[in-house]
Amino acid sequence: MNFKLLLQYDGTDFHGWQIQEELRTVQGELTEALSLIEGREVTVHGSGRTDAGVHAEGQVASVVINRQITPEKLRGAINGNIGKDVRVMRVEEVDPEFHARYSAIGKTYVYRVVNDQVISPFWVRYAHQDARPFNLETMTRAAKLFLGEHDWTSFSAAQSDVEDRVRTVTQCEIYRHEDERSVGNVINIKLSANGFLRYMVRAIAGTLMAVGRGDLSEEEVQSAIENGVRPTEAVTAPACGLTLLNVHY
Amino acid sequence: MNFKLLLQYDGTDFHGWQIQEELRTVQGELTEALSLIEGREVTVHGSGRTDAGVHAEGQVASVVINRQITPEKLRGAINGNIGKDVRVMRVEEVDPEFHARYSAIGKTYVYRVVNDQVISPFWVRYAHQDARPFNLETMTRAAKLFLGEHDWTSFSAAQSDVEDRVRTVTQCEIYRHEDERSVGNVINIKLSANGFLRYMVRAIAGTLMAVGRGDLSEEEVQSAIENGVRPTEAVTAPACGLTLLNVHY
Repeated sequence: MNFKLLLQYDGTDFHGWQIQEELRTVQGELTEALSLIEGREVTVHGSGRTDAGVHAEGQVASVVINRQITPEKLRGAINGNIGKDVRVMRVEEVDPEFHARYSAIGKTYVYRVVNDQVISPFWVRYAHQDARPFNLETMTRAAKLFLGEHDWTSFSAAQSDVEDRVRTVTQCEIYRHEDERSVGNVINIKLSANGFLRYMVRAIAGTLMAVGRGDLSEEEVQSAIENGVRPTEAVTAPACGLTLLNVHY
Repeated sequence: MNFKLLLQYDGTDFHGWQIQEELRTVQGELTEALSLIEGREVTVHGSGRTDAGVHAEGQVASVVINRQITPEKLRGAINGNIGKDVRVMRVEEVDPEFHARYSAIGKTYVYRVVNDQVISPFWVRYAHQDARPFNLETMTRAAKLFLGEHDWTSFSAAQSDVEDRVRTVTQCEIYRHEDERSVGNVINIKLSANGFLRYMVRAIAGTLMAVGRGDLSEEEVQSAIENGVRPTEAVTAPACGLTLLNVHY
């Protein structure tokens, strides 16, 4: 049976998604738990990798399990064998053709910045902090420049094993929210695309933050996207602020 | 100069507020940092103790510092010398008469319960979990029974060094909220009073949860409050779900 798993994780204490010898990873922890349940080594496919320190509120994985087990029981069995900083929120049985990575048609990420002098203990694991003033109007205008189909090579990791660097960004929004626990002013940078290159969200978030602080103009961003040369002010933002919100199928 | 500190802490990794030899406590960590700044041992007064595992979004402390320092600088100096799970959010200079504990006229706490099969990694440190169905209507009616002036001995710790056990509860509300990060259904039990005895919020929260699950009737709660005998179903709720929201002055 083919199962689709909806996952959440606090990425703080993981060396990212992808399984690595000797290091604690989300895929590694799930593989170990599922192999124990199945009684043989299984392969857990994620919708994509997340880097060390990056969180997920809606990561998706798929796995084939031959042992007879209900989705409910499988969820309980996995959750009983993994750390509390990663949880299987839902499990459903899906068509044999479903594959967490190959079936995905898009993803949404949010980058969160606490815009205060002090970062609350309730946000310190989940957001980046920058106390400088941000102009949300210029950020919102610059965000629109990222919409559409482009080769994003200059807004991704220098080394990459991906050949096709063309992706279509379908959403790039900026909004502030007052946290429910009133622990500060959070700036959110929300991005959707049919796919993301490594570091792409963090590169775009860093660029928009530079615009918000007045270190980069909209014109400079426009020409960076057109010419494929990222300005030095557009620094890749730190991992802790990034969360994978959901995967589209 | 007398300073008032507004504090937040994630209580998970602290043995509560009160300073104790060899154990990590919030008061201990603040005392150490402030004594370093002042160059002599200082006494940090909290509005009251919180138990091990209990969180604070708005704890208040006061401290007298003779060294010339601005509130802003003092905040930075303390935050630079304490763990990231406790933060001084604001500092202000106050009248010499101000005392975090003796000047307080009331407090507000919230008890949070994730009412789902699975507790998100983003809530596991900050909420209790109970997947059973809760009737919020009967909980809301029972909550009103806790309003007013009573001797709360039976709703507090058996051992206590406090003589006067009479407190006036001014707010006892129940509400659900959908978390902004859409990580489950959270039931909130919010309580205000002119003061709380040890374990009092957790005892009341446990009682209201028993009512919500149908294990206790409103009549039983009413007579428990009147007769000062807590029913065995009214179990003190675990510390992790409790947060001190603010202190009234």
